[in-house]
Amino acid sequence: MSRIPVGVLGATGAVGQRFISLLADHPWFEITDLLASERSAGKRYGDAANWVLETPMPRTVADMTVKLGTPGNIEARILFSALPTEDADVMEPALAGAGHYIFSNASSYRMTEDVPLVVTEINPEHLNLVRTQQANRGWQGFIVCNANCTATHLVGALHPLDLAFGLDKVFVATMQAASGAGYPGVPSLDLIDNVMPHSYGEEDKVQAEPIKIMGTLVDGGIRPASFKVSAHCHRVPVVDGHYEAVSVALRRPASGDDMIAAFRSYRRLPQELQLPSAPDPAVMVMDQLNRPQTRLDRMAGRGMATVVGRIRPCNLFDWRFSLLGHNTIRGAAGGSILNAELMVQQGMIAR
Amino acid sequence: MSRIPVGVLGATGAVGQRFISLLADHPWFEITDLLASERSAGKRYGDAANWVLETPMPRTVADMTVKLGTPGNIEARILFSALPTEDADVMEPALAGAGHYIFSNASSYRMTEDVPLVVTEINPEHLNLVRTQQANRGWQGFIVCNANCTATHLVGALHPLDLAFGLDKVFVATMQAASGAGYPGVPSLDLIDNVMPHSYGEEDKVQAEPIKIMGTLVDGGIRPASFKVSAHCHRVPVVDGHYEAVSVALRRPASGDDMIAAFRSYRRLPQELQLPSAPDPAVMVMDQLNRPQTRLDRMAGRGMATVVGRIRPCNLFDWRFSLLGHNTIRGAAGGSILNAELMVQQGMIAR
Amino acid sequence: MSRIPVGVLGATGAVGQRFISLLADHPWFEITDLLASERSAGKRYGDAANWVLETPMPRTVADMTVKLGTPGNIEARILFSALPTEDADVMEPALAGAGHYIFSNASSYRMTEDVPLVVTEINPEHLNLVRTQQANRGWQGFIVCNANCTATHLVGALHPLDLAFGLDKVFVATMQAASGAGYPGVPSLDLIDNVMPHSYGEEDKVQAEPIKIMGTLVDGGIRPASFKVSAHCHRVPVVDGHYEAVSVALRRPASGDDMIAAFRSYRRLPQELQLPSAPDPAVMVMDQLNRPQTRLDRMAGRGMATVVGRIRPCNLFDWRFSLLGHNTIRGAAGGSILNAELMVQQGMIAR
Amino acid sequence: MSRIPVGVLGATGAVGQRFISLLADHPWFEITDLLASERSAGKRYGDAANWVLETPMPRTVADMTVKLGTPGNIEARILFSALPTEDADVMEPALAGAGHYIFSNASSYRMTEDVPLVVTEINPEHLNLVRTQQANRGWQGFIVCNANCTATHLVGALHPLDLAFGLDKVFVATMQAASGAGYPGVPSLDLIDNVMPHSYGEEDKVQAEPIKIMGTLVDGGIRPASFKVSAHCHRVPVVDGHYEAVSVALRRPASGDDMIAAFRSYRRLPQELQLPSAPDPAVMVMDQLNRPQTRLDRMAGRGMATVVGRIRPCNLFDWRFSLLGHNTIRGAAGGSILNAELMVQQGMIAR
Repeated sequence: MSRIPVGVLGATGAVGQRFISLLADHPWFEITDLLASERSAGKRYGDAANWVLETPMPRTVADMTVKLGTPGNIEARILFSALPTEDADVMEPALAGAGHYIFSNASSYRMTEDVPLVVTEINPEHLNLVRTQQANRGWQGFIVCNANCTATHLVGALHPLDLAFGLDKVFVATMQAASGAGYPGVPSLDLIDNVMPHSYGEEDKVQAEPIKIMGTLVDGGIRPASFKVSAHCHRVPVVDGHYEAVSVALRRPASGDDMIAAFRSYRRLPQELQLPSAPDPAVMVMDQLNRPQTRLDRMAGRGMATVVGRIRPCNLFDWRFSLLGHNTIRGAAGGSILNAELMVQQGMIAR
Repeated sequence: MSRIPVGVLGATGAVGQRFISLLADHPWFEITDLLASERSAGKRYGDAANWVLETPMPRTVADMTVKLGTPGNIEARILFSALPTEDADVMEPALAGAGHYIFSNASSYRMTEDVPLVVTEINPEHLNLVRTQQANRGWQGFIVCNANCTATHLVGALHPLDLAFGLDKVFVATMQAASGAGYPGVPSLDLIDNVMPHSYGEEDKVQAEPIKIMGTLVDGGIRPASFKVSAHCHRVPVVDGHYEAVSVALRRPASGDDMIAAFRSYRRLPQELQLPSAPDPAVMVMDQLNRPQTRLDRMAGRGMATVVGRIRPCNLFDWRFSLLGHNTIRGAAGGSILNAELMVQQGMIAR
Repeated sequence: MSRIPVGVLGATGAVGQRFISLLADHPWFEITDLLASERSAGKRYGDAANWVLETPMPRTVADMTVKLGTPGNIEARILFSALPTEDADVMEPALAGAGHYIFSNASSYRMTEDVPLVVTEINPEHLNLVRTQQANRGWQGFIVCNANCTATHLVGALHPLDLAFGLDKVFVATMQAASGAGYPGVPSLDLIDNVMPHSYGEEDKVQAEPIKIMGTLVDGGIRPASFKVSAHCHRVPVVDGHYEAVSVALRRPASGDDMIAAFRSYRRLPQELQLPSAPDPAVMVMDQLNRPQTRLDRMAGRGMATVVGRIRPCNLFDWRFSLLGHNTIRGAAGGSILNAELMVQQGMIAR
Repeated sequence: MSRIPVGVLGATGAVGQRFISLLADHPWFEITDLLASERSAGKRYGDAANWVLETPMPRTVADMTVKLGTPGNIEARILFSALPTEDADVMEPALAGAGHYIFSNASSYRMTEDVPLVVTEINPEHLNLVRTQQANRGWQGFIVCNANCTATHLVGALHPLDLAFGLDKVFVATMQAASGAGYPGVPSLDLIDNVMPHSYGEEDKVQAEPIKIMGTLVDGGIRPASFKVSAHCHRVPVVDGHYEAVSVALRRPASGDDMIAAFRSYRRLPQELQLPSAPDPAVMVMDQLNRPQTRLDRMAGRGMATVVGRIRPCNLFDWRFSLLGHNTIRGAAGGSILNAELMVQQGMIAR
C-alpha cells in the first residue's frame, strides 16, 4: 500500500525539523514536499537546514530539494505547518484556499471561530468544524490547528479530571524549555543560571486555549467550556520538556485514589484506534514523590504522552499535581500529525 | 567603639560561609568564634572549609582556628547558627541554656510555640516572645529563628499587601536555587537540563511559616494569621536566587496602581533605624515586563531585598505577580543577622 | 536458541543501570543476576534503584530481586562489573577466582600486568592475556577491563591514525560530562555556570591507558606503545558525552584528506563480525565546522561510536581535531559488553 | 579636580554596558557621550538599552540621551569602542581622523601594523606606535586596541614565564563563556547541556595576537615574538569567565617553585603606578588542586586579574597549568580602560 504524500511548511526551522524527524519513518505518510522561504528554496535540504535535533537528519530527506511554499508548486494535499506566525497568517489561508489540508502548529488561527483547535484525545468531534470553515470560505482545503505546547499538556491532564469530576478552577505555573522558542530562539545569556518570565502572550494562550479545546461543538460552532485558568509562565534552563505545577478545584468530590483512577482509566479514540503516533497510555501516572522530572520523563510515550505525578491535596482548591510533556513532540509536530492520522483513519481526508 | 563578639555555629558549611562573608566587615559585630564538628575542630579555618562562595574567603578568618561548638568553649554570647537540623535539634537548646543568644537559620524550632520566627520588617514585636521562652525554660539565653528561604521572600512581598488590603488566599509556585540545599547538596545529574520537584516538607514550611510570621503576639503567644497558602515547590538549574510566581486574593479591592503603591511605600523598622544590613527599599518593584530575572536581580539591596514585578490581574484571584530574592543572603544568613542587629539596637541584648 | 545468562555487579548505581539498559534487549545475553551491596540485597530492583537514565527502567528487570554479589550466590558465569573501585579491588579477584568471567568497568586492575585492557576494535588480541592471568593466579575465571571513558574515545580516534601514519605525540584537553562521576557524583554547585578542573588521577589514566591499550602482546605480556600523551581534564555542565580537543604529531606525513581517509576506512573485527553492540562505522567523521557538539552527537552509533571533526593543521604538531563520545555507553557499560560479545563469538567463553 | 570626559561607542550592547558599568564611578573619567546607531539615537539610555549585567544600570547614565556616534556630534576626545567589527571598520578611523583617541575592543585593527595592540602590564611601550600611526595617516587622534578576551588572559599568564624563562611553545585549549558573543549572542539551544566548538577565526586570533603583543617595538614597528601557539577554542555553558588549559615549552629550565615565583613576583607598570583599574597582583596564583574554577574565581581583582593554578609537569612540554579570567571585564572593557589610564597618567593624552 503506497503511503500518502505530505509536505512540511517551514521545513528548515526547529519545529519543521521535528515534523520531518517524526514523519521520516511514518507508516502512512511520505514526505514529498519540503517547503521554505526564498532563502532556502532551491537548496538541498541537508545544506539549507541547520539541524538541531539530537537524532540524526533522516537520509531520505537530506538530498531532497527545498521548494518555495506557494500554491501550484506543491505535490502533497496534506501540509504540516511549522510556519512562524506572521507567515502562517498569510500562507495558511492561501494554501487552504488552493485545496490543501493544513495541519498547523502556528498560533495564527487557533482561536478563529470556524477553525478547529484539536487535541486528538479530547475533542476529535471538533474536526467537523472544517465543514463550516469550508462553507464559510468557499475552500476545498481547510486549516486544523493543534494547541500551544503548554496548553496541550495542560488539557491532556485536565480532560480526564473534567470527565470524571467536572472542572471548575485551574491554577498553573509553568517551567518551560528553551526549544519552545525555536532556533536561534532564546539567547543563552537569558537562560544559563536564570529563570526568565515568559511573555504575557503565552499566558493568555494557556488561559484561553483550554476553554476552546474542552468546549462543545454545537450548531457548527464551539460553546466554550465554563472553567477558568490562571497561568504563570516561565522559561527555565532545560532543552526540551514543559513542566507544569497545577492546582484544581473540581465540581464533584474526588479522593486521591479517584484522581489516580481517572488518569489511569483514560483511554480515548487515538488509543482505541491505535493510531500510529498515539501514546498508550495517553496520560502516564508516576508514583515516586520526586517524579516527573523534565530530563528523565519528557520522552514518555516517545514524547507523545503527558506525565502526571505528585498528586496531593491543595490548601485552597482540591488537588495539587505536577505534569510534564515534550513541547516539540506532543506539544507541536506530533500533535499535528496525530490529528492528521485521525482524519485519514476516519475517512475525512481522501487518501 | 569596640565591636560585639559573635560566633558562627556550623561555620564550615555553605550557610556558615555566607554568615562569615556577611559578618567579616560588619560595623557592629566581630567574629570571635568559628564553631564546627569534630571533623574540623582544631584546624585552621582556611584548611577546614571548602569555600564555595564567589567572593573570596575573608583574610581575617582564614587563619582563625575552628573550635568545637560546645558550651564553655565559646567567647561570644551571640551565636549565629548554620547548623544542620539534626545538630540544631540538640545543640541550640544546650547553648541557649548556657546563656547564648542563638540566631538560628535551622528549621528545628521555627514552629515551636515559644520561639519567635522573625522577618525583621514584618514582626519585630515577636522578638519579645524570648521572655516567655526564657521563663518557660529557665534559660539566660534564647533562640530566635529566621524563616525558610522561600517563605522569607514570600512574606516579604505579602506583608505590604496584607497591611494595605488584607490577605485572604495565596497561591505560590517556586523555582528554587541549588544553593538552598547547601554543599554538596543537589547532585548535578538532578539539575542540569532538569526541573526537580522539591520535597513535600519544603512545601509544608512555605505553607505554615507565613501564618506564624504574620500572626499576632497576644498574651505571650502567637495567634496565627487567617490567610491560607498553597505552595508548589521546585528546584531549577540556578546557583542562587529563589523565584516565586504568586496569585493573591485580597480582602479589600486594589487597583494595579494601589498594588504598586503598597509595595513602594513599604518602609519598616529596619529601614527607619537604618540597621547596617537593612535593604532600602525592602521591596523593590520592577517595571519591565521581563523582570525580575534570577541572575540579574538576586543581588538587589546587596541580596537583602525582595524584588517584585509583573503585577497583573488574575483570572481566579485578584492579582498575579512574580517575586525573587536571594536565598542564602536574605533567605538565610542575612535574615538572622538583621534580627540580631535589631535586638542590639533596641537594647534587647547587652552589648 | 537460548540466551547466555549474565549478571551485573553494582547493579543499582548509574553505570549498573546503563549495563542493564543495554543488556535488557540483548540478542545474546540475558540478565539473570542483579548484584549489589547489603543495602539493596533482598529488595525488588525497582525499589532498590533510583533510576537516573532518560530511558525507562526495563520492565523485566524491575521485579527481579537484588542479590548480594558474593561467590556461590550467582547463577551467571559472565559478570559485568560496575563496582566502585574500592569494592572492585576485593570482589573482582574473589569472583574471578570462583570461576566467573569479569568484564570490568572499574579502574582497579586496568594497569595490572596480566589483566587485558581492551577496546574491542583496537587490541582484541590482548584478550589472550587472560591465559597468562589464569596461569599466574590459578583461576578458572578471569578479569578483562575496558578503559577509562575519556581514554576509550581518545584511543578510538588515535588508533586509525597510528595504523596509517604512526603516532608520536598527543596533546588532549577534555570537557567531560557529569555522568562520568556516577550518582550522586558531582554537586550541582560545582557544575552550574562553572568549569571544574578534574582530578590529577583522571589525567594520569588518560595519559597511561592508551599506552597499554595500543601496546603489543609479546610473550604473554604487553609491550607499551611508544607515543606520549599530555592530558588536561575538566568537567563542564553537560549530562552525558565527553568532548576532547586533540593535537597529534605523526611519524609519517599526512594530508587532511589522508586523515579523513584513515578515519573513514577504519573497520575492524567488531564491524566485520557485526557484533551486536558494534557501531558501524566505529569512527564517524563530521564535515560541518561546528561539529561534533556534545548534545547533538553523543548518541552517534547508539552511543557506541567515536565522533571526529574539525580536522585542521596544528601550529606545533601536525593536526588538530575534536572528538566526542558517550561516556557511559561506549566509555563504560557498552565497552565492556562489546568485549564480552567478541569473546563469546570467538569461542573464548563457553556459552 | 574635574574628571576627564569620555564617550562610549556602541553603548547599548553588552560590552558597551560593561564599559558604562566600569566607568560610572571612575575616579578620573566621566561619561559624557553615549553613542549608538540610529535605532537608539535620541532615546533615553534607560529605554534604549536592554541591560544584561548583574549589577544595576548606573542611575547617572539611565537618563542620558543616546547620540549618534558621528564626528562633530561628540563632546569627549577619549572614546571607548564597543562597536561590532563591521561598524568599527568604518567608524574608528573616521573618528580617529577627527581627532578622537579611540580605545577599541573591536578586532578590526588589532593586527594592523601601525596600531598598538596593548595589554597594559605587558607592552605599554607599544603605545608609542600611535606616533607612527598619526604620522602615517595624518591623524590628530589615534586607535589603540586591546586584545581578544581569550588572548588577553593567555598572555597575562605567559608574559611572566617569558620574562623569567623564555617562551618557546604554547598549547592552549579554551572553555569560553557565553557573554563573549554579546547579546543576543549564542542561542541557548547551543549551550544548554552542550559543548560548542568555537569558530576557526577565534582560534586564529588566539594564535596570532600573543605574537604581536609580546613582540618588540623596533624602529616604529613591531617585531613579532618568536614563540608559537596552537589553540583549540570552545564555548561551554557558563555566563562569564574564560577557562584555559595550557602546556608550555620554555627556553630555560624551571622548577615548579620557579614557576610559582615567576607568577607571584610579576609586578608591572600598572601595579607600580597604582592605576585605578589595575589589579594587584596582576596574576593570582591559587594553591588548591581544584582551582581556578570559573564561577568562583572570575571576579578575582574585580575581574581584572588573571588567575593561575594547577601548575604540574607536562609529558610533552615542560609545564601544564590552568588559567582563568573575566572575559568582558579584563578581557574587554576593563582592558581598554586600563590602557587609557596609563596614557593619561603618562601624559600621552592631554587631560
